[in-house]
Amino acid sequence: MEILITNDDGIYAEGIAALAAALKKMGNVTVVAPDTQRSAVGHAITLADPLRVNEARRNGNFFGYATSGTPADCVKLAIKTLMKKKPDLVVSGINLGANTGYNILYSGTVSGATEGALLGIPSLAVSLDTFVRPDFSAAAAFSAKIAAAMKKHRLPAGTLLNVNVPAIPASKIKGARVTNQSRTSFNDWFDMRKDPRGQIYYWMDGDFKPKDSDTSSDLNAVRAGYISITPIQFDLTDYKFITELENWKI
Amino acid sequence: MEILITNDDGIYAEGIAALAAALKKMGNVTVVAPDTQRSAVGHAITLADPLRVNEARRNGNFFGYATSGTPADCVKLAIKTLMKKKPDLVVSGINLGANTGYNILYSGTVSGATEGALLGIPSLAVSLDTFVRPDFSAAAAFSAKIAAAMKKHRLPAGTLLNVNVPAIPASKIKGARVTNQSRTSFNDWFDMRKDPRGQIYYWMDGDFKPKDSDTSSDLNAVRAGYISITPIQFDLTDYKFITELENWKI
Repeated sequence: MEILITNDDGIYAEGIAALAAALKKMGNVTVVAPDTQRSAVGHAITLADPLRVNEARRNGNFFGYATSGTPADCVKLAIKTLMKKKPDLVVSGINLGANTGYNILYSGTVSGATEGALLGIPSLAVSLDTFVRPDFSAAAAFSAKIAAAMKKHRLPAGTLLNVNVPAIPASKIKGARVTNQSRTSFNDWFDMRKDPRGQIYYWMDGDFKPKDSDTSSDLNAVRAGYISITPIQFDLTDYKFITELENWKI
Repeated sequence: MEILITNDDGIYAEGIAALAAALKKMGNVTVVAPDTQRSAVGHAITLADPLRVNEARRNGNFFGYATSGTPADCVKLAIKTLMKKKPDLVVSGINLGANTGYNILYSGTVSGATEGALLGIPSLAVSLDTFVRPDFSAAAAFSAKIAAAMKKHRLPAGTLLNVNVPAIPASKIKGARVTNQSRTSFNDWFDMRKDPRGQIYYWMDGDFKPKDSDTSSDLNAVRAGYISITPIQFDLTDYKFITELENWKI
C-alpha cells in the first residue's frame, strides 16, 4: 500500500511524525508537506510563484519532502511529479486543533485531503482537539485503524473522511461516531493596535466555543468524548434551493 | 442599501471598478479588497500576521480600503471593524476568469462572498469567463440586476450565489440559467525547471477544458452562452453516505 502523508503545521511538526510512524506499519509512506506552518491557508494553491522542494530529515534520517507550497500544492506535486507510483491513500494531519463545523473551510489540513479526493485517491484528514501539550498517540493509532477500514471498504468518488479526536487519554475515549459537519464557526474579531512607528494594524482574534444544538454534529461528538468521522464532499450546490431560485425569474 | 465589495484580483483591478460603478446606483458602496492579486488563495485567512489597511484612490478620488489580507480577511475586517453599518449585501468580483466546477474551491473571489454568507449577509460572487481583453460591462450590469433580485427575495441562511458570465458581447448572451456546480476541475501538471544557479523548481500549469456531460452545470451554461447562477452552501457533509459509513463499524 502506497501512502502519501501531508499536513498544514509543517513537515517538522510533531503530529505528522506520529502519523507517519503509525502508518509505516501498513505500507510504504511518502511524506510531502509544507516547509513551515501553513495553518488557515484553506484550499490555496500556488500559481504565481515557483515551488521549491527539499529533503527533510528527522533524527538524522530522511523523513520526506519539504515544499514551499500549501498542503494542496504538496498533494498535487506528490501525486503528479514526486511519487513514482500513485498513492492508494492520502492522509493529512495530525493537525494541532480540531477542524469541525464551518472552520473546515479555512483548514489547510482538510484541503490537503480534499486535493487527494479530487485526484481520485481515498483521502483522510485527522485533527486533534487541542493546541497545548498534545499527545498524538490515540489519534495516530486511530488513523491506522481508519486507514485499514478505507482499504477494505470504498468511498464514493469525491468523498473523503474528516476525523477529529478529542484530547483526552485513549482509555477515556468513548468510541467513534459518524457525524455531520456542525453549522457553527469561529466567533472572531480584530484587535486594532499601533506599531512602533505609530501606524495602525489589525490582528485577527477569536474563539470557538459555539453552542450547537445538533447532537449528531462533529463538534458535539468530540465534546462528548467521541472521535468524530464526517464524510465530506465538494459539490457545494444548494440543490434544495434551485427550484425557488428559478422562480426568481432573473 | 449598504453594499460591501471585494475581490481577489486586487483593489486596482478593472473588474472591481466596473462592479463598484454599477452598484453605486443601488446604494452606498464600500470597497475593501486586497492590495495586490490574491488569486487562488481559496478560503485562506491571516492569523499569524497583522493586517494593514490603506486608503486606495482611483483617478484621484477615494475608492476604498486596500488591505494586506485575503478576500476572506477583507470581508471579516470590513464587517467587524471598518464599516459603521453592517452591509445588506456582499459582492465579490468581477473576477478575471470563470469560477465553475471544483475550481471554486481555489477561488478567492468565491471565498470573499462565502465569508459574507457565513456572517449572515446575502452574498454574491461574479466572474467573467476570460483572461484576455475583458469587457466587464455585461457582467457589471447583470451584477446590479441580480443584486436587485437579492434585495427583493431571500436566500436561505448560509447560501450564496455564484455567478459566471460568458465573455461574449451582451447582445449575444442568451439569458441566465440556474445551474449546479460542475463535477469537473483543472487538469494540472508541473513544469520542472532550473533556476540561474542550477537549482530545480516546479511551476504549476494546467488547463480547464474538461468534458462535462451534465447539461445543467455552471460550466456548460457558460459554454452555451448563458450566465450561470449557482446557489452554493458550505455544509460539506455527504449525507447520502452516512448510513453506509456507519456500517463500516469503525
